[in-house]
Amino acid sequence: MRHLIDPLDFNMQETGRLLKLAGGISDRPREYAHCCDGKILATLFFEPSTRTRLSFESAMLRLGGQVLGFSSAGSSSAAKGESVADTLRMISGYADIAALRHFKEGAPFVAARYSKIPVVNAGDGGHQHPTQTLTDLFTILRRRGEIGNLTIGLCGDLKFGRTVHSLIKSLVRYENVRFVLISPEELRAPGYIVKEVLTPSGHSFTEARRIEEVMPELDVLYMTRVQRERFFNEEDYVRLKDSYILTPEKLKSAKKDLVIMHPLPRVNEIDQRVDEDPRALYFEQARGGVFVRMALILALLGLEPEVLDP
Amino acid sequence: MRHLIDPLDFNMQETGRLLKLAGGISDRPREYAHCCDGKILATLFFEPSTRTRLSFESAMLRLGGQVLGFSSAGSSSAAKGESVADTLRMISGYADIAALRHFKEGAPFVAARYSKIPVVNAGDGGHQHPTQTLTDLFTILRRRGEIGNLTIGLCGDLKFGRTVHSLIKSLVRYENVRFVLISPEELRAPGYIVKEVLTPSGHSFTEARRIEEVMPELDVLYMTRVQRERFFNEEDYVRLKDSYILTPEKLKSAKKDLVIMHPLPRVNEIDQRVDEDPRALYFEQARGGVFVRMALILALLGLEPEVLDP
Amino acid sequence: MRHLIDPLDFNMQETGRLLKLAGGISDRPREYAHCCDGKILATLFFEPSTRTRLSFESAMLRLGGQVLGFSSAGSSSAAKGESVADTLRMISGYADIAALRHFKEGAPFVAARYSKIPVVNAGDGGHQHPTQTLTDLFTILRRRGEIGNLTIGLCGDLKFGRTVHSLIKSLVRYENVRFVLISPEELRAPGYIVKEVLTPSGHSFTEARRIEEVMPELDVLYMTRVQRERFFNEEDYVRLKDSYILTPEKLKSAKKDLVIMHPLPRVNEIDQRVDEDPRALYFEQARGGVFVRMALILALLGLEPEVLDP
Repeated sequence: MRHLIDPLDFNMQETGRLLKLAGGISDRPREYAHCCDGKILATLFFEPSTRTRLSFESAMLRLGGQVLGFSSAGSSSAAKGESVADTLRMISGYADIAALRHFKEGAPFVAARYSKIPVVNAGDGGHQHPTQTLTDLFTILRRRGEIGNLTIGLCGDLKFGRTVHSLIKSLVRYENVRFVLISPEELRAPGYIVKEVLTPSGHSFTEARRIEEVMPELDVLYMTRVQRERFFNEEDYVRLKDSYILTPEKLKSAKKDLVIMHPLPRVNEIDQRVDEDPRALYFEQARGGVFVRMALILALLGLEPEVLDP
Repeated sequence: MRHLIDPLDFNMQETGRLLKLAGGISDRPREYAHCCDGKILATLFFEPSTRTRLSFESAMLRLGGQVLGFSSAGSSSAAKGESVADTLRMISGYADIAALRHFKEGAPFVAARYSKIPVVNAGDGGHQHPTQTLTDLFTILRRRGEIGNLTIGLCGDLKFGRTVHSLIKSLVRYENVRFVLISPEELRAPGYIVKEVLTPSGHSFTEARRIEEVMPELDVLYMTRVQRERFFNEEDYVRLKDSYILTPEKLKSAKKDLVIMHPLPRVNEIDQRVDEDPRALYFEQARGGVFVRMALILALLGLEPEVLDP
Repeated sequence: MRHLIDPLDFNMQETGRLLKLAGGISDRPREYAHCCDGKILATLFFEPSTRTRLSFESAMLRLGGQVLGFSSAGSSSAAKGESVADTLRMISGYADIAALRHFKEGAPFVAARYSKIPVVNAGDGGHQHPTQTLTDLFTILRRRGEIGNLTIGLCGDLKFGRTVHSLIKSLVRYENVRFVLISPEELRAPGYIVKEVLTPSGHSFTEARRIEEVMPELDVLYMTRVQRERFFNEEDYVRLKDSYILTPEKLKSAKKDLVIMHPLPRVNEIDQRVDEDPRALYFEQARGGVFVRMALILALLGLEPEVLDP
């Protein structure tokens, strides 16, 4: 039995086959409408995350399966002191696969050890969020036809943003990827990402302070939120924030086939006028997350046995 | 694509066809048990309302469809600062139709502008609640065979009660409706209802302070709750409250085919002994709300294409 | 129409047929996968209980039915002052069967009086929890082939533990059951259990202070939690608590075919090392609860008409 806890749990071949399956589902959803008849997904969200939870639920329902679960720790047995291991052992009697979100890093790893059904990490604290990463890769693949051979700008809070860290770790496995890290000084990518991931990968990477400086080079622009409270002083925030808000003006120098992504929810870091730009892919990205999760459920339940290595 | 935001969004012909469809579903529910196979309803309740939410969910499930969503703002992405517009754009990738309840007036209108799937307003603040109004009309139609040609007493809090305002606005479109507005002085219908809705309609309307005064004239009695905190002083409340509580004694002078309605939940404004009276229709009214919502879902999804004008 | 409010609502023959049906479902679940197509279960949880709620939901989904409801009072109409009677009358229009959990003792009894659909008590305050009792009986029956002819040790908080009280009341109906009540002095079974249930039953029963004293005699060991706050003083708690924690060491003197049960959630009263012991049945017990609830739903909906007497 396989789980998905870390984005790197699937090797490149497995990831490739999974994304191919997601593409097939996206193209011919009706063919998959009954694959999970009689199967139940448990959504165990010890920490609320509407978007992720609903994406998993939509995926299971679109496969013909059913869903049960909870959307916050307050309404769970955890309030009575139960361990995550026990919750998963119990749920193994109620459902066929589980998506687990937990505020504690590593909780899904522990849960998977005791579970008798496949466990998907739907986010653990500031740690991992592998289905977001797969969704990001899927969006790039669908739009560009391949994942490698691109220059990707990662913009915003690169220090605390886990989606960015996970995406970098996954992208270094592909060929000819150039990274441009765009962030304020205070929110630069952490040292271990540079020293342990980017440098050993042999891929080229540069840093930038302003989005405008590097816009023309980018094939993909991955936006994330810059939170006011991350700054040491208000002065810096006021001076810098505009550099991390994407506007139609800033996009004037961008490539015609740029792919603009965002993990959502977006607050104000992308101007709403950008939404009309055909290069704005973030809502399509969210939609793609459903197909990726459909493929993942099929793969983990063994219903598409050729996706994961034995 | 059509939405239902305001009770008057559907013209009289559309409303008539919708209520007729609801009647057909009520008579032959099995024929509709698979109409929505593979379809998903999103219930986006930024403000809790168990009754309304469960009525929508029951409707979709009885059509063979599926449901996902959230029941309060606390567990939604709104807590992260997402706009309602973005929520709907995201949900458009997860579901086929959405029922939206929001504490902010006008939120469903904005949401519908950005949504790629039909949106139903399931209540926005003190503003509109169109499926309640359709349910009220359905109850009158089913019991009396027509909506016009009646004297309706609207009793209780006519100042703040949005269901009453919406019902009046819809009823003036029918022929020969006489309105009797029964309320304490403090809770009379607002001026705009009298000046902009009732007076221009040409329909007859009168006001009354006590339910007993007008009981014998009524064909329909629509009860609503009078909340203690609406009164300026406790003395008035104590003196008046009994006039707005329906009892078997007060019903003695009523017509034999009176239709007693209430949007529910009822607290104490209808004595429990009235529940046994065959004229008490409020629980049947709630049940009818499911059929109305089933018809609405079918109409908005285009599965009963003759209901709404193109 | 039948309800299940008190564990003794079903006579011994009915209980026997229900548990037999649960066993059949457990052996051949596929045969029952569509029995409830088109049926809706309402889970009305005025008090949160994830385990019980999900067990009911899993049961209905595995029968092909659907689920709607709420998981805490905060998101229910009760917050608006609605009575439980009215909630059930409303839900009767939305669903085909209801599982009701309420913080108030007796609430399910009142609800059933007004409901037009079968009501299952899913726990009312410290009072009754009949599906837990049926699950306990099912676990004993499945493992031992019969419910009578055994020595059962009930260990932990016998004063406040409702599952223990309900289990005793059900077990006295079977033949040749010997009860061993293992608890600290402060948490002995209440007088009425001894005087009104155990003594009149004619069954043998003894009391013990320490689990080790009686281990070799037991066929079934039913563990419950001993909460620190139940003790009059910390000294007693510290001195006694280890006597009520089950460990592999204490199990050395136990029978080879002992059945170890626990209603879950477990906190620390069973050492995690015991989980590996083949005699540890508590997670299987939780799984069995789904089959018991499947059988119950079928029986109350009249879909297996031979289970309950007319």
